Amino acid sequence: MLRKPVLDQCDAGWTQDEQKVAEMAFKTAYERETLALLQEVRNRADSVTALEDAWSLHDFLSARRFEIDGKYDFDYPNLLFVFARLVKDGWLSIQELESLEPSKIAKISALSRM
Amino acid sequence: MLRKPVLDQCDAGWTQDEQKVAEMAFKTAYERETLALLQEVRNRADSVTALEDAWSLHDFLSARRFEIDGKYDFDYPNLLFVFARLVKDGWLSIQELESLEPSKIAKISALSRM
Repeated sequence: MLRKPVLDQCDAGWTQDEQKVAEMAFKTAYERETLALLQEVRNRADSVTALEDAWSLHDFLSARRFEIDGKYDFDYPNLLFVFARLVKDGWLSIQELESLEPSKIAKISALSRM
Repeated sequence: MLRKPVLDQCDAGWTQDEQKVAEMAFKTAYERETLALLQEVRNRADSVTALEDAWSLHDFLSARRFEIDGKYDFDYPNLLFVFARLVKDGWLSIQELESLEPSKIAKISALSRM
């Protein structure tokens, strides 16, 4: 379940339009990553022919669950880092964030190349 | 990987013929349970259409891995308990152990009904 970003006084730097863009981008990335994961689970399961394959699938799911649970639990103060990670991992393009103010895009872009 | 039973002085109560029967029965149960698990993994994976389904598959694999790792790591002193569990869970029939001496079969049968 995708958790909705929490808004508080730290979000003063995000206009309402930017918040809409951010929420949409976040949702889009989550859906893309989820769909890719589900496809990979089905593909891996098709080739499960030995117990070691099942435990390998288990290890894969453990790692992805930990990663996804952590990555998509965010709030506005961390959003630049979250978007940078999503851009770096290929789940979001920097163009999809172009309605954000230039300084935010520049930070996300720089962070995504680290 | 199925671990081979360890023999030591505690195995005096198992004749060589009984040890062969025990090893074969153990291997048979392991193969049956493994095949059933692999089929269930493939079936469950086919219906993975949401992230919650993937995490449910992960929970299922976590539980089965823990259970199977514990159940098939045995030595002769514990073998009556292991066989009782395998009979109780349906992976072995008491008839497949009929070459063991009657007192062992009686114990396994009684334990399997607990």
